[in-house]
Amino acid sequence: MKKDNENKYIYGKHPVEEMLSEDPARVQKIFIKKESKDKSFDLIKNSASKNKIPVSFVETKRIKDIAGVEAVNQGVVALISEVGFIDLKEFLTNLDMKENPAVILLDEIEDPHNVGAIIRSATAAGISGIIFGKHRQAPITATVYKVSAGTTAKIPLVRVANLNNAIEKLKKSGFWTMALNQESKKNIWQADFDMPICFIFGNEGRGVRQKILEKADFIYNILMQNNVESLNVSATAAIVCFEWARKKYKK
Amino acid sequence: MKKDNENKYIYGKHPVEEMLSEDPARVQKIFIKKESKDKSFDLIKNSASKNKIPVSFVETKRIKDIAGVEAVNQGVVALISEVGFIDLKEFLTNLDMKENPAVILLDEIEDPHNVGAIIRSATAAGISGIIFGKHRQAPITATVYKVSAGTTAKIPLVRVANLNNAIEKLKKSGFWTMALNQESKKNIWQADFDMPICFIFGNEGRGVRQKILEKADFIYNILMQNNVESLNVSATAAIVCFEWARKKYKK
Repeated sequence: MKKDNENKYIYGKHPVEEMLSEDPARVQKIFIKKESKDKSFDLIKNSASKNKIPVSFVETKRIKDIAGVEAVNQGVVALISEVGFIDLKEFLTNLDMKENPAVILLDEIEDPHNVGAIIRSATAAGISGIIFGKHRQAPITATVYKVSAGTTAKIPLVRVANLNNAIEKLKKSGFWTMALNQESKKNIWQADFDMPICFIFGNEGRGVRQKILEKADFIYNILMQNNVESLNVSATAAIVCFEWARKKYKK
Repeated sequence: MKKDNENKYIYGKHPVEEMLSEDPARVQKIFIKKESKDKSFDLIKNSASKNKIPVSFVETKRIKDIAGVEAVNQGVVALISEVGFIDLKEFLTNLDMKENPAVILLDEIEDPHNVGAIIRSATAAGISGIIFGKHRQAPITATVYKVSAGTTAKIPLVRVANLNNAIEKLKKSGFWTMALNQESKKNIWQADFDMPICFIFGNEGRGVRQKILEKADFIYNILMQNNVESLNVSATAAIVCFEWARKKYKK
């Protein structure tokens, strides 16, 4: 297993197949050499498809760059997360809804520093879990793990194939969804948190997507001075999580 | 003027001398070649000493690395901040103390991402200014500027030679000092902010130094769950600044 500064990879057909069968939730992405029409990759492709793991078909050189020149990569490399994920159903089963838990749903957060910082702040605030999509979402790399200061081990991380479906399932389980968006007229200090809540934070550049905003039960802003347009998403998450914690633990 | 990804430099005796005489507050550090006993550097050395600007004596190769091989550096390079600083006296003169302003004092924050994020959150919260020391403090580089999302232009940045003296001057002007430290038994939600306040945030690894803690009128923690030991300092600053803003603007 190769480990660079950012990521952890496994390479070669058999190791990748084994990982897919034993712990598919930790496989974040698979790279297969472009020119390959080799049937021996079918097992990997089918398993990836079944587990909704993205597959990229890339130049042989790229595979070599990722796996290392000396590695016998057999034309396949998989990016492995540092931590384990659980699935949404299992996560929801283990929550005590009477405690009015809060969870976070990340809508395509791309910067691993932000993902790590959000995990750390959320864990410290007592948030029950963090839900990630599989696409256009920074995977849990070594950088995320490091910036989180090891808190990835203290909070359930849930990975879902479709964020919209996840929101529906959360709502059915009794969660109210609150998205953060500066165009809202109501600020987070006015929010009532006396219910199970799913906070939704959006991408660094484009914020929470319109489709997801439409699904939110509540939309709040953070009241800002000096005509500042937005905060870094990890600052937003820290403020919101600890505003929730303030209302919860002050009682 | 050379500009790499991180920093902006000027090189050569005359340009550095000129900068020191015209806008010394923007000169953050000076590098002079080690082997030089050349008297022609005396003007720079004296001016740096007068303005309490750190000077490093380094190998000629290092100067070349910083200035670029093709530059005629004459053995001297200066690191220039992206933004202007004002001095503490001028800053304090311009504050309306009846408004109960809040300022931030940074005790040796080393990561430019944290400095930029703190500037952005503080500006958005309506903090009146940020005070930096000159030593072991990340200078205001292009990275800081970028992470701050341009907010460096919207908030006074104050640079002082000695943080202890700055605290004394702030106290004489009517400020109460509040340091953040997890060993405190009182949390920030219990704090009364109805006075002019100077928040003190400490270094990423060692926190606020003991000498500075001893000078603080109040010490608060942030109440945390899951045995998390600390937050990232930029998350701490976001939470504290917006807790201050909540109490101020909710009225």
